[in-house]
Amino acid sequence: MSELRKDPITERWVIIATERAKRPHAFSEIKETEEDIESCPFCEGHEEMTPPEIIAYRKPGTKPDSPGWWVRVVPNLNPVLKIEEKLEKWGEGLYDLMSGVGANEVIVEFPDHYKNLANAGGEEISEILWMYRDRILDLKKDPRFKYALIFKNQGRKAGGRITHPHSQIIATPVVPLRVREELDGSRDYFEYKDRCPYCDIIREETRGKKDRVVVESDKFLAYAPFASRFPYEIHILPKRHDPCYCSIDREEVLDLAFVVKEVFSKLYRLLGRPPFNFVLHTCPFNVKKREYALMHEYYHWHIEIMPRLTQVAGFEWGSGFYINPVPPEFAAKLLRELDQKEEEKDE
Amino acid sequence: MSELRKDPITERWVIIATERAKRPHAFSEIKETEEDIESCPFCEGHEEMTPPEIIAYRKPGTKPDSPGWWVRVVPNLNPVLKIEEKLEKWGEGLYDLMSGVGANEVIVEFPDHYKNLANAGGEEISEILWMYRDRILDLKKDPRFKYALIFKNQGRKAGGRITHPHSQIIATPVVPLRVREELDGSRDYFEYKDRCPYCDIIREETRGKKDRVVVESDKFLAYAPFASRFPYEIHILPKRHDPCYCSIDREEVLDLAFVVKEVFSKLYRLLGRPPFNFVLHTCPFNVKKREYALMHEYYHWHIEIMPRLTQVAGFEWGSGFYINPVPPEFAAKLLRELDQKEEEKDE
Repeated sequence: MSELRKDPITERWVIIATERAKRPHAFSEIKETEEDIESCPFCEGHEEMTPPEIIAYRKPGTKPDSPGWWVRVVPNLNPVLKIEEKLEKWGEGLYDLMSGVGANEVIVEFPDHYKNLANAGGEEISEILWMYRDRILDLKKDPRFKYALIFKNQGRKAGGRITHPHSQIIATPVVPLRVREELDGSRDYFEYKDRCPYCDIIREETRGKKDRVVVESDKFLAYAPFASRFPYEIHILPKRHDPCYCSIDREEVLDLAFVVKEVFSKLYRLLGRPPFNFVLHTCPFNVKKREYALMHEYYHWHIEIMPRLTQVAGFEWGSGFYINPVPPEFAAKLLRELDQKEEEKDE
Repeated sequence: MSELRKDPITERWVIIATERAKRPHAFSEIKETEEDIESCPFCEGHEEMTPPEIIAYRKPGTKPDSPGWWVRVVPNLNPVLKIEEKLEKWGEGLYDLMSGVGANEVIVEFPDHYKNLANAGGEEISEILWMYRDRILDLKKDPRFKYALIFKNQGRKAGGRITHPHSQIIATPVVPLRVREELDGSRDYFEYKDRCPYCDIIREETRGKKDRVVVESDKFLAYAPFASRFPYEIHILPKRHDPCYCSIDREEVLDLAFVVKEVFSKLYRLLGRPPFNFVLHTCPFNVKKREYALMHEYYHWHIEIMPRLTQVAGFEWGSGFYINPVPPEFAAKLLRELDQKEEEKDE
């Protein structure tokens, strides 16, 4: 069983795996191995290598846990939180704890090991994004959960283990610190200006020089944030104000898929195939009405994409102080110019 | 010149190096190289390889920038912030900026390349810790600075580049986010309970089972925090309540040196020579009296030591949600037991 423990000062919640404590020698370096698709548990035809599927988009007539799917969701084989646990809260002296209740699912993005967000078609990607919506809507029904965090670690340096493209969901009985910081920050901004800060960012970034814009579509904006923490960090914002990712519709999800594909094909072309983290920030659910009464006015869901190019980031963990050697205007310019160069080549 | 840029939502400040933007290919992996002490700029006898020293503790009669020192402080050759800049603050549309004013110094901890915090003597270590105090006291005099962050990145995985043991200081015109979170959190705690939360942690950890204590001395406590983010994370707290590291006296610094040495020799024995980050959290200075009027009552300086054993930490950047596979009680037990085993061997 794991425990959720709260830091008494910063109120940061940490998942402590009390069940199988790692001995010191267990941390020896895991070597980057050759891809062995024979033993890949996420490839089509290997469905028996995962726990039974939770849901899959699959061809009519095909059976669960057999080929014929295009997006497939399975429980994590080694979940950090467990759905069977009862939600209990208690104190130990000064400290606050919760039982390690939660869900930890894997979303296998493609049946094909070598597909990715850069080389797949827009329609294929839209199905993954639609699955995100479906899973959040389902997890929301469980009153024990307050948040569903969707993320993707691609490449060893970004914490990824299995190379077959997949995302993860962790549903938790608490709101992650970074999301809470955003909620608090946007509330403060809203109280001061009576406007959503993310809507203000969209206005700011799409007028004048547009020098941080990477891709702009009808409904979405992908840009290098003004105070980017990492080289080539990119955020994607929906132009329509909404706190909750789940409100996305079929037309929007197609538009978003196009933008995601554009962003990743640019990143891949410019940086090789960089390790990266992808995080979806949406609003919490099942929270006290009083606490988040205005949340629908001030919060705005978005996606953060962080290539992991530097090991420089050392003391950042302990200080929250980031040093970024690449100005976002420069990153956005290089990413934008890729199209122009190719258009010139085509002529 | 670099710029300090503020994220409009989280109010996190980021240093953006606008001067020498890194081209994408510049991020290719830097390989772990054999230690070449011939070309080490920090070894005794190589003083001409660094910028002129700011201060050094050295034998009477020896000249600056020559052998004879035991702790030596030099400016960083590639500073992230520059002391010559004028502090300017301005807005660009929605966004807030400051000029990249600051100091970035390197504290060379030993003349000998192979000394470290585990194998050096307590007196030697106390000289490094005393130098921290001296540098903060000096940087405090500059009214442009609000914070002096002392940290240490040891090993490539922790962001360290030069293997010769050294710490760094970055003095900034802003307070780092993580420190601000601690200040806000301890203020809230103090307002609620009328006690310093760190003093409460000391009381909690030193009574009863003491199962998270690693080393305890007269004046200091080294323990594995209840909500540790990382395996074998250790914090060191002074038992005497004080917000400012600079108030440390000669007797305390000797006691602290003993504790630091104990902690590192335990970590080295248990984990090999792990990469780690070391961060000193002390209170800000030159801040508005109103803003930090009560700071002296609620804040408490401390040291955070974070071994970097896992690459697991991927999405933590984007979520602030940590998963720690090693319960702190287990980590502390293994670290404590090292002594017993050796005592048994001695018998």
